[in-house]
Amino acid sequence: MGVKKKEFAVIGLGRFGGSICRELVQLGMEVMAIDMDEDRVNEYSSIASHAVIADTTDEMVLKSLGIRNFDHVVVAIGDNIQASILTTLILKELGVENITVKAQNDYHEKVLRKIGADQIVHPERDMGARIANNIASSSVLDYLQLSDEHSIVEIIANERLNGQNLQDLDIRAKFGLNIVAIKRENQVIVSPRATETLRTGDVLVVIGSDNDVDRFEDFLTP
Amino acid sequence: MGVKKKEFAVIGLGRFGGSICRELVQLGMEVMAIDMDEDRVNEYSSIASHAVIADTTDEMVLKSLGIRNFDHVVVAIGDNIQASILTTLILKELGVENITVKAQNDYHEKVLRKIGADQIVHPERDMGARIANNIASSSVLDYLQLSDEHSIVEIIANERLNGQNLQDLDIRAKFGLNIVAIKRENQVIVSPRATETLRTGDVLVVIGSDNDVDRFEDFLTP
Ligand SMILES: Nc1ncnc2c1ncn2[C@@H]1O[C@H](COP(=O)(O)OP(=O)(O)OP(=O)(O)O)[C@@H](O)[C@H]1O
Ligand SMILES: Nc1ncnc2c1ncn2[C@@H]1O[C@H](COP(=O)(O)OP(=O)(O)OP(=O)(O)O)[C@@H](O)[C@H]1O
Ligand SMILES: [Ca+2]
Ligand SMILES: [Ca+2]
Ligand SMILES: [Ca+2]
Ligand SMILES: [Ca+2]
Repeated sequence: MGVKKKEFAVIGLGRFGGSICRELVQLGMEVMAIDMDEDRVNEYSSIASHAVIADTTDEMVLKSLGIRNFDHVVVAIGDNIQASILTTLILKELGVENITVKAQNDYHEKVLRKIGADQIVHPERDMGARIANNIASSSVLDYLQLSDEHSIVEIIANERLNGQNLQDLDIRAKFGLNIVAIKRENQVIVSPRATETLRTGDVLVVIGSDNDVDRFEDFLTP
Repeated sequence: MGVKKKEFAVIGLGRFGGSICRELVQLGMEVMAIDMDEDRVNEYSSIASHAVIADTTDEMVLKSLGIRNFDHVVVAIGDNIQASILTTLILKELGVENITVKAQNDYHEKVLRKIGADQIVHPERDMGARIANNIASSSVLDYLQLSDEHSIVEIIANERLNGQNLQDLDIRAKFGLNIVAIKRENQVIVSPRATETLRTGDVLVVIGSDNDVDRFEDFLTP
């Protein structure tokens, strides 16, 4: 997204860093992939714009890569917390503007905050919370949390909704929810009309308070 | 969500499994936490409904825990792929209805599919893709992908939008996007009116095709 090609560097090409690298390339970004492991670097040499074997705990190495000129650097080193912290510290000292770092635990996060990492992520923890929300409900497929109280939620329509149109259902009056879109087969119907008739298997994309979403779910699977 | 308390079991209490356990409890579910590591089980004994030390590659152990009666079992064993596969196989044979398994790589996923895991997740990979989308754009904060072509996206309003009302902006006509909500401070304004005046820092929650979202982003940060 965006017209200017931003330049990224990803340090650490495990599953997390590797996935960031691949997705950034797909989004049209320039990406330098860095790892101290030769095999991993080889794997990404055909994917990334550049792929470099380097130990990023060495300040000279990072300097010689011109790391300061990148718009955003991601540190995706996992198990070796010391290497992650040292790398982040050097990036900060060299004046990199945006640094995103993967944290392994609370201690790691605390240190990263102190030395000035801009964004700290806990992939396993955050994904665990997403999956829990997904499996806790049999009707909710995915969601986007807007605030402590509001979400956009994908709810799968069961037989209870089959053949009903939106006007009759009147989800807005009864549950305080707005239907933002309907996903049906490969189609997305944005802002569906009141005359739209639902079918079993339709995915309703609704926005509202978490309480109201719960009430609607309970109505679907009482 | 939902009124009936569903019963879950989470096997493997690393960061991923542990996070699932904690979030499920917070969502009001009954959760049995299982790990072969005593320290990890102790950590979750005050969080989960039950916490049990067990090696889940032992069929007798899983039987004696009554695992068949749980609505949903999550296998969050990571590095030991063999233990993950064997555990899943036993759960399947014992007739567990819903099994979600964490996969380490494509080979692991393929085997899990073959033996009948219901849902297979790659936390590091999936979170990598989410983070990449987040950092690729300076204006996109979060998103919910609806299809290959459509998304709901949170876009931060910069000075370009400050003081303009939705009618004047006419994002719908100009970009084909619908504004679903506006996040302002701790408030969520659902279905904002045409007279609503935007401020720098407002977060616009828009729905539309990825192309149209890109065009709007380019308009914001040309
Ligand atoms: N000092 C360093 N310089 C460069 N790369 C490093 C350094 N230390 C570790 N790495 C690389 O970081 C990558 C990620 O490390 P990690 O220990 O998290 O592996 P992983 O568990 O395979 O990652 P993931 O959990 O994302 O799959 C590895 O490929 C490793 O070679
Ligand atoms: N056969 C088994 N039975 C029960 N628990 C097991 C078995 N094998 C592994 N585990 C547990 O699974 C948990 C997760 O294992 P993993 O190797 O992924 O650790 P981790 O890297 O700390 O996890 P995460 O990446 O989620 O933080 C560990 O606590 C481990 O004790
Ligand atoms: Ca790891
Ligand atoms: Ca679900
Ligand atoms: Ca792990
Ligand atoms: Ca962003």
